[in-house]
Amino acid sequence: MSQHRFESAELLIIDGQQLDGSQPALLANLPGILRGEGIFETFLVINGEPTRLLAQHEARLRHSAELMGMELGEQGLMADAHQVLAALPPEGRWRVRYTVLRGHERRLVRMWTAGPVSMPPDQVSLLWSRYRQDPRDPLCAAKTTSRAKYQVAHAEAIEAGCQEALLPTVDGDVSECTAANLLIWHDGALRTPGLDRGILAGVTRALLLEGCQKAGIPAFEQKISQKLLCEAEEVFISNAVIGVIPVDKIKGLQDGYPGRSGAMLPRLRAAYPAALPDPPPPIPRQENS
Amino acid sequence: MSQHRFESAELLIIDGQQLDGSQPALLANLPGILRGEGIFETFLVINGEPTRLLAQHEARLRHSAELMGMELGEQGLMADAHQVLAALPPEGRWRVRYTVLRGHERRLVRMWTAGPVSMPPDQVSLLWSRYRQDPRDPLCAAKTTSRAKYQVAHAEAIEAGCQEALLPTVDGDVSECTAANLLIWHDGALRTPGLDRGILAGVTRALLLEGCQKAGIPAFEQKISQKLLCEAEEVFISNAVIGVIPVDKIKGLQDGYPGRSGAMLPRLRAAYPAALPDPPPPIPRQENS
Repeated sequence: MSQHRFESAELLIIDGQQLDGSQPALLANLPGILRGEGIFETFLVINGEPTRLLAQHEARLRHSAELMGMELGEQGLMADAHQVLAALPPEGRWRVRYTVLRGHERRLVRMWTAGPVSMPPDQVSLLWSRYRQDPRDPLCAAKTTSRAKYQVAHAEAIEAGCQEALLPTVDGDVSECTAANLLIWHDGALRTPGLDRGILAGVTRALLLEGCQKAGIPAFEQKISQKLLCEAEEVFISNAVIGVIPVDKIKGLQDGYPGRSGAMLPRLRAAYPAALPDPPPPIPRQENS
Repeated sequence: MSQHRFESAELLIIDGQQLDGSQPALLANLPGILRGEGIFETFLVINGEPTRLLAQHEARLRHSAELMGMELGEQGLMADAHQVLAALPPEGRWRVRYTVLRGHERRLVRMWTAGPVSMPPDQVSLLWSRYRQDPRDPLCAAKTTSRAKYQVAHAEAIEAGCQEALLPTVDGDVSECTAANLLIWHDGALRTPGLDRGILAGVTRALLLEGCQKAGIPAFEQKISQKLLCEAEEVFISNAVIGVIPVDKIKGLQDGYPGRSGAMLPRLRAAYPAALPDPPPPIPRQENS
């Protein structure tokens, strides 16, 4: 997953101004920079078409803002998206990120960055992390730029030959990966830790739960103990950029999950697009003048 | 304490270049900005004279770097300090901050910011925070720019009419404040949570422990339960900018600490300067040309 972590700012828009990403663009002493007071959302744009889940990303951004005490006002991800979408090339697979940093006094800095992204891997290995989530920490539900813990946990996973790290909770059950939710298939049902387990409310995770229900596949939230995780028949991770990826091992905990050869993988991947909302009206494209 | 949280960049030096703080100075897509991958140290410069504890700040910065997987190399706080010290005016009370942000590839961005700071309050009230520290999180010992949790906890303290927030551990004992260590006077000794309690190793905290020992005042690390905290005769917080400040209440937990009228306060304040190292050789000042 490391290739998905660093978007090059091939496209950079700050407060409505399209800028050259290779030039200094931000004041150095913003609270958003000095103290990690920022929130963000990331989604895919494929051949000029954004994810149909922009409203879900916007809702999560607003929840992050509320938890961080940042007042977004009317202006948000959807209201600001037309400019980045119009500026993206009509072809290719782009990872687009909307970041809102706290500025001075009550101002916010709203920033789009985007870069091309390759296809995700077809399976991943996880590292059982020594970093833990506190389910009682309200900020676990916020997607903030204060990501030092996740970056270090992820770097340790890479160092260990894995692609992602899986974080236990301080209570001894399982929360999430550094940039993805965890789901397991066990005893005839898809199961994923609930929102009270110190996790981010993944938009793809929600779509999977809804899509499975529509397809008649049992799917629900439940506390996942280490024991249950070890007994799982299949394990998956999900996020808005990679979709659903199967896991072949959790280093430090359990080997031998089926990974890409799992029987449920094709059923899940078939089920969740059915829960997607209708496509939005087309975005007017920027004309070359 | 809120007046101590936002340094204006009246002085800004990035990678050795003195810059105008009101102009954009940083690339927008640095990992240090997008993902909070940064470390920092803050200290006081009074009438041109920096704290005598620069070596301690440098050691902690290097520990933070190690925990974050950032390679500082030879260049560090002390090697870089001459420029900011030479550029500061010879009078006044300045809060100086050295920040190292992760840049692209293996590069680091080294940044000095400094602004005038007023005298700290003579006592503070704390809020018993709903945010908690995980003593098993190795990053608790790193001073990183991923400070969302501390900023939100601090904002809640201000909202509650307090000046700082005090964070319990997930184990139910006491860790630290959002930008200060906690110390209590109880049963004839100064006591403070140990470094295994999810706290930052405060340089003033260490100085206090050493200074008290030199002065024959019992002082040691120990786990501080909520019960012990409630039984404390006096409570203090400390950091490198405020020194030692007495506490008059912990909202949500206990009222009625003596604050500025505590009997131990003058003894502590008298004891710890004795543990300061000798002053360093004078820094050559920048001549006006």
